[in-house]
Amino acid sequence: MGRGIGTRAAAGGHSVTFVDASPETAEKTAADVRVYVKNGAKISTASLGDVQLGDVVVFAVWYGTNIELAKQLGDRLAGKVVVDIANPLNNTFDGLATAADSSSAEDLAKVVVPSAKVVKAFNTTYAGTLSSGQVDGRPLDVFIAGDDAGAKEKVAQLVRDGGMRPVDTGPLSRARQIEGMQLLHIVTQGTLGTNWASAIKILG
Amino acid sequence: MGRGIGTRAAAGGHSVTFVDASPETAEKTAADVRVYVKNGAKISTASLGDVQLGDVVVFAVWYGTNIELAKQLGDRLAGKVVVDIANPLNNTFDGLATAADSSSAEDLAKVVVPSAKVVKAFNTTYAGTLSSGQVDGRPLDVFIAGDDAGAKEKVAQLVRDGGMRPVDTGPLSRARQIEGMQLLHIVTQGTLGTNWASAIKILG
Repeated sequence: MGRGIGTRAAAGGHSVTFVDASPETAEKTAADVRVYVKNGAKISTASLGDVQLGDVVVFAVWYGTNIELAKQLGDRLAGKVVVDIANPLNNTFDGLATAADSSSAEDLAKVVVPSAKVVKAFNTTYAGTLSSGQVDGRPLDVFIAGDDAGAKEKVAQLVRDGGMRPVDTGPLSRARQIEGMQLLHIVTQGTLGTNWASAIKILG
Repeated sequence: MGRGIGTRAAAGGHSVTFVDASPETAEKTAADVRVYVKNGAKISTASLGDVQLGDVVVFAVWYGTNIELAKQLGDRLAGKVVVDIANPLNNTFDGLATAADSSSAEDLAKVVVPSAKVVKAFNTTYAGTLSSGQVDGRPLDVFIAGDDAGAKEKVAQLVRDGGMRPVDTGPLSRARQIEGMQLLHIVTQGTLGTNWASAIKILG
């Protein structure tokens, strides 16, 4: 997912720094993404300890790890837009692990420093579909939720620049529905035969 | 919604009886739908007191009214497939009125007679889009949830016969996510400019 979102950002002319527990993985990802760069965007790598975080920090990690990462980064997230892409599936991948009145994004918002602004996005776009940003000839819809209008607009601009369509669904609590929608998308992969190459889109 | 779903059923060769508190409305709806009939399907009207219920009973009513209607019909729903299409919006149309761990369909399932089988379907398909069963040249996706495989297959067959695509999402509890997804579809009508002529679809 880091490679996919990074690809769209690079194609939209935005610089990206990849961080991974394995420096080799980060370098490989950066190399893969560099071929998509437009407008002189700079693609680099860094360790978690050394990275200079950008305005927008995408947590391309699982639910649970996102919470740990936020705690680990602590004050370094001050003033940042933190993008939560996690789908909080249970251990049997057939339900949500979050409380019925919460979501991964809301759980994350509870642990980041107060000035960090959590935005839900990119949890319904499969990694493979982000290489082109399209499915079936249509731009991907990226469903967004968040409580800070400016933070949402930064993410929406990244989405637009990458050739996709942002769909602002409202406050961060709408992440409950966005994550629930993706549960439907996940559990129907086999029955629809779409094999992780599909996209949920509002047509019309 | 009754007209829309009836239109797809009639176009699929299925007979439909319309019931409305106003006999004139029922007659007008029946007349509108008759032009779509294929394979000799019969389109009729009846009062709630007199109607001979078919195998599949579509509750084309609001959330709340669906619960009252189930209580009123009582034993007459024995053995029937009851289709819940309701979107349980709150009074300000920006959230769900159901408990966080329930859904309109599950609330309905609690009040029907035990042998009735509740299936969630058609809550994401706007009435206007059902006249053709398509948006943007693509067949509508009808997201289905239910605990009885046979009941779901009856609804899926109606959907297929009407030229649309059934998407079986699993047990009735998935209605929570289907209704949540439709909340996103509803709240973004204005911002997307789709004006109730859109459809949520899995592409790919």
